[in-house]
Amino acid sequence: MDNSNFDKLFNPDSIAVIGASRNPNKIGSIILKNLRITYRGKIFPVNPFINEIQGVKAYPKVSEIKEPLDLAIIAIPSEKVLQVLKDCDKKKVKFAIVISAGFKEIGKEGERLEIGLIKFLDTAKIRLIGPNCLGVINTNPAYNATFMDPESKPLEGKAAFISQSGALMSAIADDATLEKIGFSKIISIGNETDIDISDMLKALLVDPNTSVIALYLEGIENGREFIKSALEVSKKKVVVALKGGKYKTSAAAAASHTGSLAGNDISYELAFKRSGVISVSNIDDLFNFMRDAPNLKVNSDEVIIVTNAGGAGVLTTDNITKEGLKLAKLGTNIITELEKVLPKEANTHNPIDILGDSTPKRYKETLEIIAKLNKPIIVLFSPQETSMPIETAKEISEIKLQNRELPILSVFLGGTRVEKARHILRDNGLPVYNYPHEAVDIIKGLYSYSAFLDPTFSMYNKEKIKKVEFKFKENLFGLGAKVILDKLNLHTVDGVEFKNETTLRRAVRATGYPCVMKLGSNKIAHKGEIGGIVVDIKNEKELIKAFNSIRDKAVENRVKPTHYELYKDANRGEKAKVELLLGAHRDSQFGSLIGVGLGGEYANILKETEFLLSPPSDGDISKFKSSKIGRLINEATKPKVFSEIISYMLKLARFMEDNPSVKDIDINPLFLFDDGVVATDFKIFV
Amino acid sequence: MDNSNFDKLFNPDSIAVIGASRNPNKIGSIILKNLRITYRGKIFPVNPFINEIQGVKAYPKVSEIKEPLDLAIIAIPSEKVLQVLKDCDKKKVKFAIVISAGFKEIGKEGERLEIGLIKFLDTAKIRLIGPNCLGVINTNPAYNATFMDPESKPLEGKAAFISQSGALMSAIADDATLEKIGFSKIISIGNETDIDISDMLKALLVDPNTSVIALYLEGIENGREFIKSALEVSKKKVVVALKGGKYKTSAAAAASHTGSLAGNDISYELAFKRSGVISVSNIDDLFNFMRDAPNLKVNSDEVIIVTNAGGAGVLTTDNITKEGLKLAKLGTNIITELEKVLPKEANTHNPIDILGDSTPKRYKETLEIIAKLNKPIIVLFSPQETSMPIETAKEISEIKLQNRELPILSVFLGGTRVEKARHILRDNGLPVYNYPHEAVDIIKGLYSYSAFLDPTFSMYNKEKIKKVEFKFKENLFGLGAKVILDKLNLHTVDGVEFKNETTLRRAVRATGYPCVMKLGSNKIAHKGEIGGIVVDIKNEKELIKAFNSIRDKAVENRVKPTHYELYKDANRGEKAKVELLLGAHRDSQFGSLIGVGLGGEYANILKETEFLLSPPSDGDISKFKSSKIGRLINEATKPKVFSEIISYMLKLARFMEDNPSVKDIDINPLFLFDDGVVATDFKIFV
Repeated sequence: MDNSNFDKLFNPDSIAVIGASRNPNKIGSIILKNLRITYRGKIFPVNPFINEIQGVKAYPKVSEIKEPLDLAIIAIPSEKVLQVLKDCDKKKVKFAIVISAGFKEIGKEGERLEIGLIKFLDTAKIRLIGPNCLGVINTNPAYNATFMDPESKPLEGKAAFISQSGALMSAIADDATLEKIGFSKIISIGNETDIDISDMLKALLVDPNTSVIALYLEGIENGREFIKSALEVSKKKVVVALKGGKYKTSAAAAASHTGSLAGNDISYELAFKRSGVISVSNIDDLFNFMRDAPNLKVNSDEVIIVTNAGGAGVLTTDNITKEGLKLAKLGTNIITELEKVLPKEANTHNPIDILGDSTPKRYKETLEIIAKLNKPIIVLFSPQETSMPIETAKEISEIKLQNRELPILSVFLGGTRVEKARHILRDNGLPVYNYPHEAVDIIKGLYSYSAFLDPTFSMYNKEKIKKVEFKFKENLFGLGAKVILDKLNLHTVDGVEFKNETTLRRAVRATGYPCVMKLGSNKIAHKGEIGGIVVDIKNEKELIKAFNSIRDKAVENRVKPTHYELYKDANRGEKAKVELLLGAHRDSQFGSLIGVGLGGEYANILKETEFLLSPPSDGDISKFKSSKIGRLINEATKPKVFSEIISYMLKLARFMEDNPSVKDIDINPLFLFDDGVVATDFKIFV
Repeated sequence: MDNSNFDKLFNPDSIAVIGASRNPNKIGSIILKNLRITYRGKIFPVNPFINEIQGVKAYPKVSEIKEPLDLAIIAIPSEKVLQVLKDCDKKKVKFAIVISAGFKEIGKEGERLEIGLIKFLDTAKIRLIGPNCLGVINTNPAYNATFMDPESKPLEGKAAFISQSGALMSAIADDATLEKIGFSKIISIGNETDIDISDMLKALLVDPNTSVIALYLEGIENGREFIKSALEVSKKKVVVALKGGKYKTSAAAAASHTGSLAGNDISYELAFKRSGVISVSNIDDLFNFMRDAPNLKVNSDEVIIVTNAGGAGVLTTDNITKEGLKLAKLGTNIITELEKVLPKEANTHNPIDILGDSTPKRYKETLEIIAKLNKPIIVLFSPQETSMPIETAKEISEIKLQNRELPILSVFLGGTRVEKARHILRDNGLPVYNYPHEAVDIIKGLYSYSAFLDPTFSMYNKEKIKKVEFKFKENLFGLGAKVILDKLNLHTVDGVEFKNETTLRRAVRATGYPCVMKLGSNKIAHKGEIGGIVVDIKNEKELIKAFNSIRDKAVENRVKPTHYELYKDANRGEKAKVELLLGAHRDSQFGSLIGVGLGGEYANILKETEFLLSPPSDGDISKFKSSKIGRLINEATKPKVFSEIISYMLKLARFMEDNPSVKDIDINPLFLFDDGVVATDFKIFV
């Protein structure tokens, strides 16, 4: 689809409103009112029973309107929507915004209606936003096709907001006016029956009025498509997302370790990272980004603090360190220059403490010196007896005028005495906050965005990795899974199947002592828990004892083993340095996740696992290298072991891609030796 | 010291101001002005050169004032402070607030002056706040003995604020007026040369006007005394602290694992927990507690959400889960009642979604039903087309009037449309926030406080644990440390010393094969790093090879071994389930910390260690049991092993208490077997 197709959605020459009536409190009537106030094109109310609404001529049907129509706003009972849509399509209306609720969000009956829409849209030309949405606002050219209170008049600006929650959208639009956030567009995306967030992202990519796109989302249907669009967009514009429903009350424990570790929306976080989307945790952060990101660029994680209050500098430093940013080192030249303009008692090292009696001039001179470093600056102001907040705000604004690209973020602590100063800064387009952590969050987000823009990273070369097909329809645990992993050239411990004491004696000739015996079953994921595993078998006596014990335990637990398995002891000779978990988990939205973590029996208690979105990129792998687990591997083993684990991750990535029936893979433990690895237990879940 | 002694500090019959002059911008003059505006007792300016300041009769010296004096405010150059203090003491002035800076905070010269003060105070009767402070404000009876801008007039209320940062104090006092935070006292504590935070806590304990005490602190000299006072106070009043300087840029890596893991102010967090102090991370949290904690009690961690916007409910649920709180289950009775008053489309399960068209009446009816549960309630309001914020705020206030003890916290999202509603709630003494996370933070803090008040916990019985004295003046690594641990009845692996090949052959008779050989030295903490350890020695040939290798490595690394050590292989027979680190670290403020974590070579990468303030209480131990490490121990071993580890922790606690020369103890690894533990490497640092 061509992005430019969305032109007439945002810049329609004419709009029909279907559902306005004489009752001014009806949703359609409020929309009509909002349109009349904001829209300069032609408006056509449609209502079969009256000729005129709010002084505008009304038409009984869309088809009776002679002029061409670009956009229809539909706010009528859900069961009537399909017919009206058909009328609109016939009339060659290009876009419809369906406000009406009563579709899939209300259950079965609504779902039936929604399926009706989908079927119709399959062949229709009209494109649709909604249903079950609050509408759309454009500020330039202006139209307000929502039923928000007309009192909330969003200012024009550079931020577009797309929301999966209508209520949150009206709250934000209301607060935005007070907070002086300027919007290019506000879009309530509704049920996304046709146009979804990914489509909107692409549309906003080519919108010259939008430089920051803020998302509130609770779920994405097509995660891969989202990553693709978001990636494309965030190369040009800042995209910031607040994901609601991050913390799920845990469902029943998953059989797969990897699966149960991949909880709490880790896939969304990975998808955001992959596509350069800044992830925020709270509404206030989202606000701050909408307001300030259009005018800010941060290319460094080394922050300079200028403060007139030691305590405020200390707290800001805490926030900086907590968020993984650094205090910039100033260098002797800068310090010498600072010493020239600052009193003796001042601290010329970062955080630069210019003392409680700071004049606006002292702020100015300090900022002029450090501006040269072109690093993010947090200017702290605490109202003290001789402080001059307004004049200080003016000096800061002046510095910004002279250094347009310089990221200066102010934090004016206090209340009545600094309110005006905050307004001055905000009116001059400078970010100013009440508390240090707000400034730090913005710097962190924008720095991570610049880091995303910076390096060139590439995906793994799928073709270089062997394709292995998985044709089974049931879980494979143990030797069954080993066959697959062996095909992938993963290094697994030697093992043989046996059925009875006779074949056991043959089996041990292959493994030798010490060895490990396991019950064979594709039903029991955690055999250890029912006594189905005996390790460190050292001689024939122990071998027979182990077999009897496993058989007895199986009976006791009403398990029917299909066979038994005997493995070499992977520890033989040298003890494993570390036991890892290596696995893959199919995520319902974003494809697969590859997980590497602390393994062994206690993987689920320790929960120390790094996940990578599959297929991993160079960048993902280099980040993995500096993670706890990556450092552990590198510390414990030779470099080639790290490479080997990376190659295993890529193999699992391709395997998951090639075999959509596979849900999870657990290799746990994967023994790490000084110069190699051995997988000693393996499970594939379908 | 008797707490009531502070009466005349807060309720003086007369105040002298030393340092006021004709220049109205001088600090002393501003203080005089502030006192004249606020204080109803007698004011005596002291100035040797003039007879009258701001229309008040001035005296050349304190001694010339005939009337008795309770309090002196001193704002003169630092070098003159001591003499004036002496005059005041002679005149039997009870308290002095020394505003003057120029003491230890400016370096050597100031330190000399401060020592002068300390010496004098040793024998004087006068008590002192400061020096280097902003002063003190009391709201009832009122006096403002600070040089804050007179425009910032703190309201009267129930919160006392003690600050180690003057600038932060003036920022908070300024913002508090706008935010309608009421104060009982505001105390800038300065250098704490005499009266310190612990003293002030005790003073505020008996202050009937104070129900919440907020602290901003960057460091505490006497940590044990702080815990004692804070514990005493927090049994009666809410104490909340913001600690600045939490995140230190890491100093040089400590030789002790335990020491290097105990970074980032973990001791402060433990001290706060121990003494019932609520710890907050940001200034805004501190504000919210000051304003709202006096009127709130939270006895449950099960939160009920009432919302007119699904998205807001989702985000609040995220915050609740993230902070370790829960959503309350409503029960069928409540749900049935809710169904009666709510529309069919409403969600009667928690979060209770009463829909976008919610009327004030619907809020009221819902709240009346759930009020019975007496659990914390978050009422979310998003301004939607038909919403009535003001009337809703009134209904919520009404519910609170009828249920005085009910913790109802409102979150009114939005801006202009809800501002008035927020004011109504605040004026009625109800907590109301702009964002859900603020309400959740308050509930979390107050719940943890109520949990602190609730259980009876007791400290370990020191007398039941054997006393072992440590008389060495150097670090002990290996067998030297083993002797001490053996005296403590900790289970250590068998080991013997040897000096050469002959004594080595004797040594191996004691240990048998496999065995472990180590270089003996109290200088080298990490012997493995220089090749000073060989493990898994299986026979004589390997034994001799190991000895040669360790000797060669020692030469190579210019290390002079004092001897060599041969140990049994603790793994023999059965492999260790888990390797732990168990240690103790002496903290400069709060005594010792006991740490238990993931051990082995990679302890410092994994950084998974639980710390307990020593001596641990029952409560600490029961919390430890449910920590990751506690669960790991219980999962991996029999219950008696957990008990054994606890007994080891108590032994280390007593050992640290008895032997102040010991700085750190590292037992790493401590092997965990199914039914026992063995320490295999041990270090004691002095």
